[in-house]
Amino acid sequence: MPSLNHRRADAVLTVLRPDGHPLVDTDVVVAQQGHEFLFGNIGFDFIALANAEDDAAEPPAFGGAPASSAAALADLWLDVFNAATLPFYWGRFEPVRGRPDTARLLRAAHWFADRGVVVKGHPLAWHTVCAPWLADLSTDEVADAQDARIRRDVADFAGVIDTWDVINEVVIMPVFDKEPNGLTRLAWDRGRIPTIRLAFDAARQTNPTATLLLNDFDMSTAYECLIEGVLEAGIQVDAIGLQSHMHQGYWGEEKTQRILDRFARFGLPLHLTESTLLSGDLMPAHIEDLNDHQVSSWPSTPEGEARQADEIERHYRTLVGHPAVQAATYWGITDAGAWLGAPAGLVRADGTPKPAYDTLRRLVKDEWWLAPTTLRTSSSGRVPVSGFRGTYSVDGVPFELAHDGEVVVRLEG
Amino acid sequence: MPSLNHRRADAVLTVLRPDGHPLVDTDVVVAQQGHEFLFGNIGFDFIALANAEDDAAEPPAFGGAPASSAAALADLWLDVFNAATLPFYWGRFEPVRGRPDTARLLRAAHWFADRGVVVKGHPLAWHTVCAPWLADLSTDEVADAQDARIRRDVADFAGVIDTWDVINEVVIMPVFDKEPNGLTRLAWDRGRIPTIRLAFDAARQTNPTATLLLNDFDMSTAYECLIEGVLEAGIQVDAIGLQSHMHQGYWGEEKTQRILDRFARFGLPLHLTESTLLSGDLMPAHIEDLNDHQVSSWPSTPEGEARQADEIERHYRTLVGHPAVQAATYWGITDAGAWLGAPAGLVRADGTPKPAYDTLRRLVKDEWWLAPTTLRTSSSGRVPVSGFRGTYSVDGVPFELAHDGEVVVRLEG
Repeated sequence: MPSLNHRRADAVLTVLRPDGHPLVDTDVVVAQQGHEFLFGNIGFDFIALANAEDDAAEPPAFGGAPASSAAALADLWLDVFNAATLPFYWGRFEPVRGRPDTARLLRAAHWFADRGVVVKGHPLAWHTVCAPWLADLSTDEVADAQDARIRRDVADFAGVIDTWDVINEVVIMPVFDKEPNGLTRLAWDRGRIPTIRLAFDAARQTNPTATLLLNDFDMSTAYECLIEGVLEAGIQVDAIGLQSHMHQGYWGEEKTQRILDRFARFGLPLHLTESTLLSGDLMPAHIEDLNDHQVSSWPSTPEGEARQADEIERHYRTLVGHPAVQAATYWGITDAGAWLGAPAGLVRADGTPKPAYDTLRRLVKDEWWLAPTTLRTSSSGRVPVSGFRGTYSVDGVPFELAHDGEVVVRLEG
Repeated sequence: MPSLNHRRADAVLTVLRPDGHPLVDTDVVVAQQGHEFLFGNIGFDFIALANAEDDAAEPPAFGGAPASSAAALADLWLDVFNAATLPFYWGRFEPVRGRPDTARLLRAAHWFADRGVVVKGHPLAWHTVCAPWLADLSTDEVADAQDARIRRDVADFAGVIDTWDVINEVVIMPVFDKEPNGLTRLAWDRGRIPTIRLAFDAARQTNPTATLLLNDFDMSTAYECLIEGVLEAGIQVDAIGLQSHMHQGYWGEEKTQRILDRFARFGLPLHLTESTLLSGDLMPAHIEDLNDHQVSSWPSTPEGEARQADEIERHYRTLVGHPAVQAATYWGITDAGAWLGAPAGLVRADGTPKPAYDTLRRLVKDEWWLAPTTLRTSSSGRVPVSGFRGTYSVDGVPFELAHDGEVVVRLEG
């Protein structure tokens, strides 16, 4: 099992009384409040809730529970996850040019931010679910529209969404042949790297301190080659997004480790942006585009749920165990309305948690977590604190455990 | 069938008498002498011949007939091909540091050049058949050795070899795990593009007018992404090398066309550097590294030879039909000593030509060729000449048919 030392910090806390003098030989309660590691999930299911909509609201693409079930789900979601991915698929976000879904997504983003959740927008540029009205534009006009869309949305959400999957699946973008679309045309005519540069420049110039990701499902050398080219071209990528939909079966520790090592070579943080593990039948291996697999019924099964729980534990241990990984986003909280109808959720369609939910919660909130613990300060007011990096409190006063060393906290009067 | 207009030229030849006056109303014989298009093959089989060695000479890696059969093969080779690839696999070329096989390869290169053949060296940098003594060097020392090797060899062969496969199979280079080697280590530590830059800089600075190729077997988006990155990084690549070993079956026109279109997008000439079509059993599709397939006997069969002849015709029609293709090198003249023992040659091990040889010769020297033809000059000494681009003669005096337009030739006294 990999060492988790890179996730932990050993600090010595000096606790001061409200008057500034050390609190000596006294019991204090130290408790973890949050993780530095980003345990993410999609937030698609809560857009309707945040907007007080009913079930008639159109669900977002790629996953989204009915509004009526979202309130019950929210507690389960918030008990485990600290990072949400919200959908900005252009074809859904702005199906009619000039009428973006900004207000609705802003309310959803604030709903999460108000609950202490880091929010990411996904994606700003992609050939799938692309704005249909790009079809009538010239390539130059597509480029201008893409640029303007990014500048508008990154500006509109700045402060509440400061992390973006800027551009998605560029490896395949210029040769994507499933449906004609403006982005494929742009990437074919101008090249992948100029298209990436356009998107990153627009996002970076609009929100210079944002965390900007390149994201792809292609884990082959193709994505490595693309990343190398992008970095050589001087485009600043803040994190490498690795999708990891495993509808066709869990990768296993060895393959996952190899992928992480290969992409860690660039020295950038890795975000596992879209992890999926099924609790039912696997998708046949011959399917290349997951969207091609359409089945009328895809139930969660007891055996599948046991397997999913085992695999989610192994997957998260591998990810948390690798020093380059900074975020792991699971793709779906519930089977209700799940992408492709797959039993990918951590919660069944009836709202009850699957074993995988309990397993992940146990890891995130128990094994990798410091529950409220009574400790006694020394004669100089000092007490060692060791735990997963994140936010903590001592007698209710917050502090950060970000690295080994000294931390001083002054209690409130 | 694709138009071949891009391969042809329609010129009007003005024939002058030795005294400079037009040769009017006179029969002249016009004949094609050579092709502008590079019809290549490996020249490995003639190294021993060029060096007057006997069969005890060690054959080069990846193909090479016994010396005793080479003389008979040479006529067949030279009757069809105008471009030769010679082996510079570092591990064979310089197995002991400081003792390169320069003199022997120089004689082989001159042997071809003396016969009007364009010679290419292959490759200057590769992880396979890599110099074993790199293993003991640090990564920086590997880089220095690679740089020095390229500068030395490109200088030593300048004037006789001015075309180089500079670096081979970089897509897989840093993640190649079949055997430890210095180049994989270099590409892993420094990255693919810096490794390519090192190799191209060394070659370009040594022979600024050389034709320098990037070469790969990977026809996927990975190679596209690599090329994009290389070009964005400002590395000048003169032609894109596409291997096309088809031991596992002919690609077919449609796939070939799609590959050519995808790689033509960069606006660079395409060289099909290593085409192979078998006249026997195909290699099983599950083999990933062709070198893994070792069989004790792999015969050429009558059915296989008929299929090979059909496929070679279709393959060459597709390549010659695509305007971006500038060169097509077949990988092997004879089955004797062929790479992997595969029946990939155009000539059987017993020295008799296969149907594929006759087919290719028919295309290159008949259908796409202007045999000696008697034409009559006009009252102003002019005569239209139309044919495949290349070198021609009129009454034995050479001229070039490189593009549509006017050509003036003065006969010799």
